[in-house]
Amino acid sequence: MLFMVEMAVDIPLSFDRSEAERLKAAEKEQFQELQRAGTWRHIWRVAGQYANVSIFDVEDNAQLHELLTGLPLYPFMTMKITALCRHPSSTYDDDR
Amino acid sequence: MLFMVEMAVDIPLSFDRSEAERLKAAEKEQFQELQRAGTWRHIWRVAGQYANVSIFDVEDNAQLHELLTGLPLYPFMTMKITALCRHPSSTYDDDR
Amino acid sequence: MLFMVEMAVDIPLSFDRSEAERLKAAEKEQFQELQRAGTWRHIWRVAGQYANVSIFDVEDNAQLHELLTGLPLYPFMTMKITALCRHPSSTYDDDR
Amino acid sequence: MLFMVEMAVDIPLSFDRSEAERLKAAEKEQFQELQRAGTWRHIWRVAGQYANVSIFDVEDNAQLHELLTGLPLYPFMTMKITALCRHPSSTYDDDR
Amino acid sequence: MLFMVEMAVDIPLSFDRSEAERLKAAEKEQFQELQRAGTWRHIWRVAGQYANVSIFDVEDNAQLHELLTGLPLYPFMTMKITALCRHPSSTYDDDR
Amino acid sequence: MLFMVEMAVDIPLSFDRSEAERLKAAEKEQFQELQRAGTWRHIWRVAGQYANVSIFDVEDNAQLHELLTGLPLYPFMTMKITALCRHPSSTYDDDR
Amino acid sequence: MLFMVEMAVDIPLSFDRSEAERLKAAEKEQFQELQRAGTWRHIWRVAGQYANVSIFDVEDNAQLHELLTGLPLYPFMTMKITALCRHPSSTYDDDR
Amino acid sequence: MLFMVEMAVDIPLSFDRSEAERLKAAEKEQFQELQRAGTWRHIWRVAGQYANVSIFDVEDNAQLHELLTGLPLYPFMTMKITALCRHPSSTYDDDR
Amino acid sequence: MLFMVEMAVDIPLSFDRSEAERLKAAEKEQFQELQRAGTWRHIWRVAGQYANVSIFDVEDNAQLHELLTGLPLYPFMTMKITALCRHPSSTYDDDR
Amino acid sequence: MLFMVEMAVDIPLSFDRSEAERLKAAEKEQFQELQRAGTWRHIWRVAGQYANVSIFDVEDNAQLHELLTGLPLYPFMTMKITALCRHPSSTYDDDR
Repeated sequence: MLFMVEMAVDIPLSFDRSEAERLKAAEKEQFQELQRAGTWRHIWRVAGQYANVSIFDVEDNAQLHELLTGLPLYPFMTMKITALCRHPSSTYDDDR
Repeated sequence: MLFMVEMAVDIPLSFDRSEAERLKAAEKEQFQELQRAGTWRHIWRVAGQYANVSIFDVEDNAQLHELLTGLPLYPFMTMKITALCRHPSSTYDDDR
Repeated sequence: MLFMVEMAVDIPLSFDRSEAERLKAAEKEQFQELQRAGTWRHIWRVAGQYANVSIFDVEDNAQLHELLTGLPLYPFMTMKITALCRHPSSTYDDDR
Repeated sequence: MLFMVEMAVDIPLSFDRSEAERLKAAEKEQFQELQRAGTWRHIWRVAGQYANVSIFDVEDNAQLHELLTGLPLYPFMTMKITALCRHPSSTYDDDR
Repeated sequence: MLFMVEMAVDIPLSFDRSEAERLKAAEKEQFQELQRAGTWRHIWRVAGQYANVSIFDVEDNAQLHELLTGLPLYPFMTMKITALCRHPSSTYDDDR
Repeated sequence: MLFMVEMAVDIPLSFDRSEAERLKAAEKEQFQELQRAGTWRHIWRVAGQYANVSIFDVEDNAQLHELLTGLPLYPFMTMKITALCRHPSSTYDDDR
Repeated sequence: MLFMVEMAVDIPLSFDRSEAERLKAAEKEQFQELQRAGTWRHIWRVAGQYANVSIFDVEDNAQLHELLTGLPLYPFMTMKITALCRHPSSTYDDDR
Repeated sequence: MLFMVEMAVDIPLSFDRSEAERLKAAEKEQFQELQRAGTWRHIWRVAGQYANVSIFDVEDNAQLHELLTGLPLYPFMTMKITALCRHPSSTYDDDR
Repeated sequence: MLFMVEMAVDIPLSFDRSEAERLKAAEKEQFQELQRAGTWRHIWRVAGQYANVSIFDVEDNAQLHELLTGLPLYPFMTMKITALCRHPSSTYDDDR
Repeated sequence: MLFMVEMAVDIPLSFDRSEAERLKAAEKEQFQELQRAGTWRHIWRVAGQYANVSIFDVEDNAQLHELLTGLPLYPFMTMKITALCRHPSSTYDDDR
């Protein structure tokens, strides 16, 4: 089941630098694990912003909640979530 | 070059039904041609809305403008456009 | 899987009265069928508005889309959709 | 009498961790007591957010005010309140 | 139980004049009946607008819904509803 | 002359507690003095919020400004002001 | 007593041209009468818009309401009203 | 050339009191100098707010920028700027 | 003196086609005359929208108002106007 | 390829002054280098604000992202990005 998640990250200037780097590295690792599992199907950077547009393929809303709130940078993120469906005109078999 | 385009369609109730069907069929055809060309890389329906989220892969802004304003349903659409980039953490080669 | 759907209805004053009544009756019938099936789990009127707050229990986003866009009054509705999860503190077994 | 209450929680990163845990535990206890009393009739998590959608069944506005402002996490919450009514089409006897 | 209701009226220019006058007269009559009953406790015009701020004293949300949706001008009104409580600092006995 | 004033209070968590209590007590005293003088004609709590809806009866805009900016909690308040008039349909002599 | 009134005018394209001209001429006449009376103290056009910023000097809110709702173009106007006071730093005697 | 400038001032509670008083005094002096020069043609307080509505008469946009960003309280201000023109219906010679 | 003008055009579907074409041709002619005069210094299309971003170099606000409200498509346009200044860091002599 | 970038700068009052000056100097240097390269084609100050409107001419979205996020003042900026195209009516050869 597909969801678009728009994430914007805002780490305060006063936040400890090395802790921020540690969290970003943990975030990247967790992202790549989810990408290999096919759960975090797509990610794109929003040009000029510290933000991304992502497509998740999950079992249900609960799994989506677990994944997002478990992200290392979650406390610094604002999220907008949109439930998606396969489009009837699509000719791609895997356009999930 | 990638853009997210969020399209919402609003055809007035008073609009001629058969003309609407003709425009939707033409829209679908044009969409599938662009999908085969790899230009309209992704399309998903927004659940519960007459709207979609799409990813375009175009040469430049001008080509994007030509494609979007040339859609048969364009006069009935509201569009929101966001410039995207490949994300540095992505491990997918083709996550354009 | 649970979703909150906030529906506001706006039938133009100029719309044919008897057709509107026919659509409302069809809407009520479809609603009650979905309620019996356990899919449209809850519905409440918003006080003072021609609007409701509903909770749907569906298989997936696609089923939600089918149900909502198939409602007789759909062309007159504005919808806001929020993905929900069971709350970990809830002591109700059936608080789906 | 029914109200929908949408609660979003925002505890600052700088707030004392153990005090936050103490407040969350007190919040959970108070919630479950109100749930047993039938006052806090429903609660659902909003997927991906530190937020919930709740349905309260109270005597009047004053009781609602007492309950909400007495929650341990109230100082960290943003609340949106909507007065609801039983829907005339509902076939559930207890769809309060 | 008290509610503030902010009502804005917008009758289209093309709407039949004499029908509009008839509806306004019916509205005034219904308002004055509710005022005598103590239900529509206060009404004030918003300066420069075709709008009012009103205070209702009702049994419950359902009664509020019946009263508002039964107003002759209801189809032309936009309503904003706010649940109120007696203020603890008030020294007026009847400041309901 | 009547004005609706919607006041929301936001005292930061870090603000000194006893000073906050002192300001609230001073606010209450000043409020009751203005209420006795007939200037602060009505006050209601907004259910679930640290906010009120008030009706002021003042000489002119300047007196309203003096009263509001002189409140002990003024630095913590957000205010929305709406100029009101007696409503022509009102049958209450004192519905000022 | 001073008020800033921001007026935007929107006459539909389909509205009768000569009637529109008649209303504009009546509006201008009424404006100039109020200007001579010192009630409509200032008026400025908003550059590039069919809109103005005006300063009214009136007895009270009720007079403001009468003047504004009595304007020939009132049914086509959107109004935003702000209560003003003389500024304590002003050195102009007549900066009302 | 005329501009409306709407200024809202927000000095944080934690800001040094005597420094704030010094800045306000400097602001007042600078204001009165500009008023005597005819540049800051009008100023009115917004009732109930720490805000004003002002009319500037300047040579060009650059002079407006210099004046506004040079105000002692500028770092604490939010500004909204609207380009104005003399209104063709005005009968006042000096309604600049 | 420079202004950014953001123009969005919305010609209703029901508007006469040949009249629309006539207005667009007249608009283009007027635009090119103003471009040759150096007044309409820049124009860019907004990708995917029937809208443009333009830079005007005018004598004053009044000239800007005359030019914009005199455009053949003005009745179909929504305009947002921003006063600009030369930037002090710019090394271009003609970056007006 | 052209983009409009609207940048607003907000450096907190508590931020170290000399560090702010150092960042502003570095920003100016980087800006002028990009201007000489023809990448930062235009920049204008927004009158009365610490903000600018800029036109970038870049290879693609990725280059735009690199340039913007690499600016010394980037952490203090809010950015709004709009994809532009050459306008078909333009007679300027270099109106990129």
